[in-house]
Amino acid sequence: MPSASASRRSQEKPREIMDAAEDYAKERYGVSSMIQSQEKPDRVLVRVSDLTVHRADEVVWVRARVHTSRAKGKQCFLVLRQQQFNVQALVAVGDHASKQMVKFAANINKESIVDIEGVVRKVNQKIGSCTQQDVELHVQKIYVISLAEPRLPLQLDDAVRPEVEGEEEGRATVNQDTRLDNRVIDLRTSTSQAVFRLQSGICQLFRETLINKGFVEIQTPKIISAASEGGANVFTVSYFKNNAYLAQSPQLYKQMCICADFEKVFCIGPVFRAEDSNTHRHLTEFVGLDIEMAFNYHYHEVVEEIADTLVQIFKGLQERFQTEIHTVNKQFPCEPFKFLEPTLRLEYCEALAMLREAGIEMGDEEDLSTPNEKLLGRLVKEKYDTDFYILDKYPLAVRPFYTMPDPRNPKQSNSYDMFMRGEEILSGAQRIHDPQLLTERALHHGIDLEKIKAYIDSFRFGAPPHAGGGIGLERVTMLFLGLHNVRQTSMFPRDPKRLTP
Amino acid sequence: MPSASASRRSQEKPREIMDAAEDYAKERYGVSSMIQSQEKPDRVLVRVSDLTVHRADEVVWVRARVHTSRAKGKQCFLVLRQQQFNVQALVAVGDHASKQMVKFAANINKESIVDIEGVVRKVNQKIGSCTQQDVELHVQKIYVISLAEPRLPLQLDDAVRPEVEGEEEGRATVNQDTRLDNRVIDLRTSTSQAVFRLQSGICQLFRETLINKGFVEIQTPKIISAASEGGANVFTVSYFKNNAYLAQSPQLYKQMCICADFEKVFCIGPVFRAEDSNTHRHLTEFVGLDIEMAFNYHYHEVVEEIADTLVQIFKGLQERFQTEIHTVNKQFPCEPFKFLEPTLRLEYCEALAMLREAGIEMGDEEDLSTPNEKLLGRLVKEKYDTDFYILDKYPLAVRPFYTMPDPRNPKQSNSYDMFMRGEEILSGAQRIHDPQLLTERALHHGIDLEKIKAYIDSFRFGAPPHAGGGIGLERVTMLFLGLHNVRQTSMFPRDPKRLTP
Repeated sequence: MPSASASRRSQEKPREIMDAAEDYAKERYGVSSMIQSQEKPDRVLVRVSDLTVHRADEVVWVRARVHTSRAKGKQCFLVLRQQQFNVQALVAVGDHASKQMVKFAANINKESIVDIEGVVRKVNQKIGSCTQQDVELHVQKIYVISLAEPRLPLQLDDAVRPEVEGEEEGRATVNQDTRLDNRVIDLRTSTSQAVFRLQSGICQLFRETLINKGFVEIQTPKIISAASEGGANVFTVSYFKNNAYLAQSPQLYKQMCICADFEKVFCIGPVFRAEDSNTHRHLTEFVGLDIEMAFNYHYHEVVEEIADTLVQIFKGLQERFQTEIHTVNKQFPCEPFKFLEPTLRLEYCEALAMLREAGIEMGDEEDLSTPNEKLLGRLVKEKYDTDFYILDKYPLAVRPFYTMPDPRNPKQSNSYDMFMRGEEILSGAQRIHDPQLLTERALHHGIDLEKIKAYIDSFRFGAPPHAGGGIGLERVTMLFLGLHNVRQTSMFPRDPKRLTP
Repeated sequence: MPSASASRRSQEKPREIMDAAEDYAKERYGVSSMIQSQEKPDRVLVRVSDLTVHRADEVVWVRARVHTSRAKGKQCFLVLRQQQFNVQALVAVGDHASKQMVKFAANINKESIVDIEGVVRKVNQKIGSCTQQDVELHVQKIYVISLAEPRLPLQLDDAVRPEVEGEEEGRATVNQDTRLDNRVIDLRTSTSQAVFRLQSGICQLFRETLINKGFVEIQTPKIISAASEGGANVFTVSYFKNNAYLAQSPQLYKQMCICADFEKVFCIGPVFRAEDSNTHRHLTEFVGLDIEMAFNYHYHEVVEEIADTLVQIFKGLQERFQTEIHTVNKQFPCEPFKFLEPTLRLEYCEALAMLREAGIEMGDEEDLSTPNEKLLGRLVKEKYDTDFYILDKYPLAVRPFYTMPDPRNPKQSNSYDMFMRGEEILSGAQRIHDPQLLTERALHHGIDLEKIKAYIDSFRFGAPPHAGGGIGLERVTMLFLGLHNVRQTSMFPRDPKRLTP
């Protein structure tokens, strides 16, 4: 382990080194003074990913983290890391480096950020442990830009080790709480870098697709005056001298935008659920990708748009984020995500029949339990070879009061869920756009009309038929990548037990 | 005013009409039953904006709102509206329409949604009051899809009338509270449609530009465990058995992402301020466009990226949203927004000199008041002919504790604001990335170190120099369009006195 010999924020060298013989390289290394924008040098910093044989024999400057260091006689090998890329660097006693300089390099704490001047040299044997396998950097100057503390709360190499291998070989892995408690370091791993770059891609593809389809992005308030869905599972906020609530979904506001003639809207934003659920897939705050759309005659017009949007996301990810998918798979192996075009749409009664055939006893108006959802996912995969499908026509009894009943069958509704790898990622429905029917359904559900007056009033001045749905970003990321916990796909997850960092 | 003669959700015709003579057109009009997705007809609905002379003599179906109706003998003229577009329709007694049908059409409440079958006819004289000036629709069938209540809380024509004209001529306009109380209707006006389409464009251009520059989009939590900036102006949330807070900015999380090697990040999301400010430009919840970026040597690298991002937004708006800008200008006349390339950057001391020359007395370390900000904006516009500029090098004393001091001048800091039409839209700075200096500065500000421990600890394992800033979406929209109240550019504004709708 390197010691904390490099004192912070000074050009001084540790006493032990200073005491030694005259150091002919003493200007070539050290701890730089803090960068406070004192100057604007012309120096170009080359990206680690650009260090290839095309730059062989060039002198370059690189800024990177010290991923590992290993001293060996008169040499010190460093692995320099920059995001997902790394390269080997060699400090060797010679014209450019003194003994003292090699010792200094060997003692730099891991995760410190350094500026290095070096010559790019082609290597004869590929360096298997680095992404830049064909070159190494022969260091001529090395300065510490930001020094890390000597003891890291977790080791990055442990944090990317596949769980199975770790158990088999008894090598260390990092548990989830340690990761989350030290998220700044955990997010530096190649796996985390890939997960969150891909997640950024999901948002980008979602918006790209919808903007191309003529949707308008809206911003909806998160602080609301009344808990619209009856008041359960809602966080209370002190709002000056009164109480307010955190929105459990942007639904009312999306619907108001439809009533205000925006026709097709979407939004991306936080959604809050004060549910004391401690499962692999529940968070108290997550990111909702929400869609709402007026349709002409049938809510399937909307279902098709939503399903196509998800298909465009899946395709875009497989086209643009293959590197990230591959990186995550190295730690968490997983079958590629499969989907059909057009998307498979099953009716709830068909799903019931499949489950019953598999030995499950369920009533016609019973909702799917999580295990039954997963079983259904496996049955659908076997029969149709898809990881993505729509389940349509849920029993009216298990859906919220604003769900449009199916006019052909009073026990069914015009509502749907969408599933990835057997887990729900979207819930949606045709909404009731008629204030009279909405009132009847609210009364049927025992909802206090006074509390939803504003909601019902939104439909009194002409409202087009419309439908929509909300997608959980973290779930889509998790299930697309075949991960097993939504905390892996939320940068700073919130659950009943975790509010930090 | 039309009466509420059309009964809702039934094919029945009002008794007075039924009692009249045999109605040869009785199948050609009425109130449709509620659309519950009973069927999937082949019928194509044509957009109002597509009703031009190219479709002359075609029979088309259109779904639109009844904007106005005017009966005149055996004829009824309707104006049909769809978003920003409208067209005149004529129901006249003849082969297709009976007396009863004309009366029915004349009595449809304004803002109701109707399906109309009609023939597109070229008109000899342009219809000045409609966007589709060269054609009108000769109605053959008319069905009410969604009936509006007879009394509207505000008239759309009043809501788009320029204030000045209204005062001069004594014609009605609509005050802000009435608008906001009835936002679903107010948002239907051409002005509102244009404002929020343009706002959607700002978000799109912001992201497009940053993704092209290699930024990654991140999602940051809004519920946080501690009020990071000392606890003032923060909303408290009941979080299960404890208290939590609503984030006043994503800054800590953006900075953690920089410490986690994402290098360049942005996010768009709600920001909460429990400030009892009742001004034209303060909201308790607004949308922040946030940027954070590691730099190599000088925070101006970041300032340039942010300024260029704003310039790309301004250019994109002027290129892609000319129609929307024009629509808003009709109600709120305003000079086109001017900016320079590269963006003008003034130092705080230069601004002070300009203000002093204009007769203002200000200390060197005094912050700008709102009137002085506006005056400065006018002086800068006169001298440099730009509505957008950067004010750099604020006095250290008026900036938050985490602001990097200027090493050349201990009273200055590496911080900046950006202004549009003399109002601040962005505040930013180089952040202190060294835990020791950060601790010193926090103590200097009298901040309880225990409360910001997690923040300071984020920098202990190697942190690159970085800078960033946060932009207020509603302010950018307001100032770009030359509007005068941020409530005009927030769909559902929140302030100390307003939490609904």
